[in-house]
Amino acid sequence: MIRKYTYGHPFLTDAVVRKIQEETGKPVYLEETEETDQLLFTYRMKETDLVYGLGESVRGINKRGWIYESYCTDESHHHENTSALYAAHNFLIIKGAQTFGIFIDYPGKVTFDIGYTYMDQLQIIVEDKNLDLYVIEAQSLREIVREFRELIGRSYIPPKWAFGYQQSRWGYKNETDIRKIAAEHRENHLPLDSIYLDIDYMERYKDFTIDKERFQDFSSLVKEMKEQHIHLVPIIDAGVKIEPGYFMYEEGVKNGYFCKDANGEEFVAGVWPGKVHFPDFLSSEVRQWFGNQYAILLDMGIEGFWNDMNEPAIFYAQDRLEQVLEKAGRFQGENLDIDKFFGFQSMVGNLCNNREDHKKFYHETEIGKVRHDKIHNLYGYNMTRAAGAAFDRLRPDKRILMFSRSSYIGMHRYGGIWTGDNKSWWQHMLLNLKMMPSLNMVGILYTGADIGGFSQNTTEDLLMRWIQAAMFFPLMRNHSEMHSREQEICRFMHVKEFRNFLEIRYGMIPYIYSEYMKAALSNDMYVQPLAFVYPEDKFVQQVEDQLMVGESLMIAPICEQNATGRYVYLPEEMAMIRFRSLHDYDVEILFKGHHYVQAGLYEMLVFLRPDKILLLGEGGEAVQEIKTEKIKAIAYVKEGASYNWYDDDGESKDYENPENYSRLTVDIDGSWAYQGKELKTFVIEKL
Amino acid sequence: MIRKYTYGHPFLTDAVVRKIQEETGKPVYLEETEETDQLLFTYRMKETDLVYGLGESVRGINKRGWIYESYCTDESHHHENTSALYAAHNFLIIKGAQTFGIFIDYPGKVTFDIGYTYMDQLQIIVEDKNLDLYVIEAQSLREIVREFRELIGRSYIPPKWAFGYQQSRWGYKNETDIRKIAAEHRENHLPLDSIYLDIDYMERYKDFTIDKERFQDFSSLVKEMKEQHIHLVPIIDAGVKIEPGYFMYEEGVKNGYFCKDANGEEFVAGVWPGKVHFPDFLSSEVRQWFGNQYAILLDMGIEGFWNDMNEPAIFYAQDRLEQVLEKAGRFQGENLDIDKFFGFQSMVGNLCNNREDHKKFYHETEIGKVRHDKIHNLYGYNMTRAAGAAFDRLRPDKRILMFSRSSYIGMHRYGGIWTGDNKSWWQHMLLNLKMMPSLNMVGILYTGADIGGFSQNTTEDLLMRWIQAAMFFPLMRNHSEMHSREQEICRFMHVKEFRNFLEIRYGMIPYIYSEYMKAALSNDMYVQPLAFVYPEDKFVQQVEDQLMVGESLMIAPICEQNATGRYVYLPEEMAMIRFRSLHDYDVEILFKGHHYVQAGLYEMLVFLRPDKILLLGEGGEAVQEIKTEKIKAIAYVKEGASYNWYDDDGESKDYENPENYSRLTVDIDGSWAYQGKELKTFVIEKL
Repeated sequence: MIRKYTYGHPFLTDAVVRKIQEETGKPVYLEETEETDQLLFTYRMKETDLVYGLGESVRGINKRGWIYESYCTDESHHHENTSALYAAHNFLIIKGAQTFGIFIDYPGKVTFDIGYTYMDQLQIIVEDKNLDLYVIEAQSLREIVREFRELIGRSYIPPKWAFGYQQSRWGYKNETDIRKIAAEHRENHLPLDSIYLDIDYMERYKDFTIDKERFQDFSSLVKEMKEQHIHLVPIIDAGVKIEPGYFMYEEGVKNGYFCKDANGEEFVAGVWPGKVHFPDFLSSEVRQWFGNQYAILLDMGIEGFWNDMNEPAIFYAQDRLEQVLEKAGRFQGENLDIDKFFGFQSMVGNLCNNREDHKKFYHETEIGKVRHDKIHNLYGYNMTRAAGAAFDRLRPDKRILMFSRSSYIGMHRYGGIWTGDNKSWWQHMLLNLKMMPSLNMVGILYTGADIGGFSQNTTEDLLMRWIQAAMFFPLMRNHSEMHSREQEICRFMHVKEFRNFLEIRYGMIPYIYSEYMKAALSNDMYVQPLAFVYPEDKFVQQVEDQLMVGESLMIAPICEQNATGRYVYLPEEMAMIRFRSLHDYDVEILFKGHHYVQAGLYEMLVFLRPDKILLLGEGGEAVQEIKTEKIKAIAYVKEGASYNWYDDDGESKDYENPENYSRLTVDIDGSWAYQGKELKTFVIEKL
Repeated sequence: MIRKYTYGHPFLTDAVVRKIQEETGKPVYLEETEETDQLLFTYRMKETDLVYGLGESVRGINKRGWIYESYCTDESHHHENTSALYAAHNFLIIKGAQTFGIFIDYPGKVTFDIGYTYMDQLQIIVEDKNLDLYVIEAQSLREIVREFRELIGRSYIPPKWAFGYQQSRWGYKNETDIRKIAAEHRENHLPLDSIYLDIDYMERYKDFTIDKERFQDFSSLVKEMKEQHIHLVPIIDAGVKIEPGYFMYEEGVKNGYFCKDANGEEFVAGVWPGKVHFPDFLSSEVRQWFGNQYAILLDMGIEGFWNDMNEPAIFYAQDRLEQVLEKAGRFQGENLDIDKFFGFQSMVGNLCNNREDHKKFYHETEIGKVRHDKIHNLYGYNMTRAAGAAFDRLRPDKRILMFSRSSYIGMHRYGGIWTGDNKSWWQHMLLNLKMMPSLNMVGILYTGADIGGFSQNTTEDLLMRWIQAAMFFPLMRNHSEMHSREQEICRFMHVKEFRNFLEIRYGMIPYIYSEYMKAALSNDMYVQPLAFVYPEDKFVQQVEDQLMVGESLMIAPICEQNATGRYVYLPEEMAMIRFRSLHDYDVEILFKGHHYVQAGLYEMLVFLRPDKILLLGEGGEAVQEIKTEKIKAIAYVKEGASYNWYDDDGESKDYENPENYSRLTVDIDGSWAYQGKELKTFVIEKL
């Protein structure tokens, strides 16, 4: 059951797709306090209450014990004490004495103090008095999520090739670089489905342009790569370069498509291209205009994109930079004392992503001019919505890969996200793991972190473990920044072992894809905390580094350097499969409870639930090479196992076709039965 | 056995105190490569080899898998990818196919690539060809450490009161602040032995001055606090403020005591006081001069100090600042492109602790003028040596508390260290734990981290867990920075529970002090990795978050938010004591092997080895109030337990007096016998 409470006149975010009748009284569960400029909602937590949610954020699956901000921020240096990340996902579930979900549909800053100031208090501070508050009740945590997900609409579905391994690095500069990456993967038989184009493919970082010197024949390169079953995926940035003659700039200025300052002048910020204007993505006309530009690249054969810098990231606001330089000039020759020195240094440091700059520009909306900070969290969302809606117009029958850095709830209908710029830290691998179920709660299923870490220097063992950890995550991309150690697999000693794990990934894709699609089509979660699947088990609430993946599997990646094993908790008897390669694995049945299990650096553990089935294909070097006519079905059969298998062509949108579903059952004696449109042969491995 | 290899003409660091005959040939174990400007030592590691050592550094107890730099650096933002911290401790133990220790006695930059570039290679790169290399062989890891520790001399011994709980914050500004902190601890019966004075007690940050406005009668305040059994511990910074009329400045200039630039002018850097000169601590005359100044504060009743900023930290070098401001001035009015903008920002960011500035000043040494970067790692060491040697002259019969931020091996004879500015991160609590045994290996026994975290905002549960984790660490100080959340215990909800754990600490001090003293006096480790105590147990090599403390105990702190228990490995059968307070605990005998054990936020686990004894006193609100005439002895007696108990007056230096030692034995039937000078009564708790 969903209750909606409306305060004042909320800005229409289009986060929800279902109309809910407003309640008239005070909200259930929460104590509401009105302050001068804000609304405060308080809930007193029992010591054993848990809190789930918040999508992309720091810390644990259980969010208790910290203060989080929903205010989309370009924050690559994030760590435990960070409050705001790239996205804003205002959904929480309180689990305990009372269990319910909350969604705050407000597009400006919202603070979630979950036992930080007072250990027993949840405080939600909304910096405005215009918002929609939804309270969701259901029989279970999973049902609360399902109710919420029905409210916000179906999750984005990417093409099937986007489940392959993907290689990216800020620093691939030209056709030669791209060909080299493709070749070294193909020559080493390292499965690969795409190579990313970071900002350097563009002409001076201008959206929807190609640098002609470095990419002399872009369409041919796209085609050449596609012949190798590799997709090129270009980046699109939010800001449009100020450059007379550049069509985006000219059209945008002419039609008034850019955000303006208080004086009605186009707001100027510095980003990659130097000075830019920001398209006013809150306007449907601007979205249509910007979205249509993707056709330029689609027409060159491109089938996927990533939208970046769309919090929006601002390296500097032009007026602030001028002030800072002017002040710096005055310091010259002056005898700076230590306070002035630090003042100077922080003034320069604070040029980047200064929130005060968000108060300097405006959006034209249906309710008139709105200052950016008031709707800040909708910016990246609407950039990606512009793209998603355009793809539906431009390529109505074809799925296009799209994921974004910034997001708000609602954007999950148009694309996935990656979890933003991270670091080559074991700690960030663990964070990657913990974010996955929270993101699934808010409808973001197509997601993953930069494997190996984006900035700073990775190590070979970190990359090895991270690939194992990200094995089941839909977006599986190795991405790194220019100034860091190169981290393509071929840069390291154990190429063979890396290959083994990529081959396992491709062998798992029939299962991964099936589970992803079923979750997306039924508003369910693809990755879940153990507590969502085993609500009667009190211990699983403590488990922060194991996840349920689809209906059959539990994973427990190793996230610690030099570890050759780990502790794992089994909420029921399971079959532990220790993979060394797609064909080399051993199996052990482990009882319910605590275990220490071995897994050396070149071994990966997967836990199969009883009477569930893991489909294991033969893999391939690209998703389109995967064959599924003959497939292995691994099951630990106690009473009889079954699996509902979803599959489709991976490209078109006929999701609801009942022929996409088939059903495999395996009896206690190992005999199997299959119902489905196509003929399939199964090799049953009964554990 | 220790082998010494001398290359070229090493700078005399005084790290070692024992004369070793030089070998003539090439070093054992290592492959030596001479390059143009450096020497490279390589060792090929087997996959199962472990590497211990490096004292203060990031990552695990097992140092494999990262590249570390010995180059003392003011690095409060340290995390997994940091290479250099505040100290330089060039000691390693390789354990595996071959087991041996290495000490590189070279005072400039040394790089330890321990399987980072190539997973199977240890590479030590010394940026010079003048050094002493020691290779140490012995029967066990512990014996290798003992051999090394004999080589470098006995560890510093603080007064006993320094084992009490200590409260610090950058931001206590005046007498009122100090009295408030004292009062709120005493009124709440929170044990406390000292309050720290950070930089604000000084007159404009000038060493050996007192701000007369904020501390009108400093000596009386010291006395008043001492009557409450609280010691005030002032900070001393490395840099001396340039201020005509200030005695330190005048004397230093007059006698040529400051480091000079290439032109023979005093080098100017910006630190807390604004512009400063750096005393040339490498000169024994300067050390004597600087050390003598501590008498100013000793004479006011002060009995302890901490030496800070002595890497030395440099906020800016005057000439670089002038260049930067000049360049910034030129940018004014110019249309900055994005490269120039980032150039400007990094130029300003790089003002702080820029290593190039270390090439701008010199030391006068016995072998003539030496450029600072060549002996950089000796600077903080020699500042603290100046203090330690002065204390021996000024207060020959009394122990003075002294610890430093920067250090090099050798400094451990003159003082302890704290592990520098850290963060309010669970991750840094874990790092604190992992550093402890590594620091013990290099002779630094009196050490601890800033409990609760120095910068950023702590949480109540983090502080609670950190106090539990630091329970057995000699230096137990809650320290935080001005701009962070206040983290004195009284700022939180659960003062009673915090008090419980401080009471446990004070109850444990008889054991802690005894174990500390025995370790210091026998060149042994007070805190050890499990692998040092159970060499026959292969699993313990994996254990990174449990430690052996003294001869009787193992600890396994909880370092994860919201966890109400943890996994623990027992290398032998042990008694697990779950403390809620000094008098409220339960005991469980656990078998050798893996366990998941419960410990809620207000519970702390201690593991007692069989036939070993834990002494538990009645505590007190200050160390000098602790009574030891009647004491509880807890033992899990299997065959008969015994304990060698060291105790002394905690102030004087009669360490070798046999009367400091007594011996308690407990029979299987619970009867006990005691041999010692003083009469003691024991309450035996036989588990």
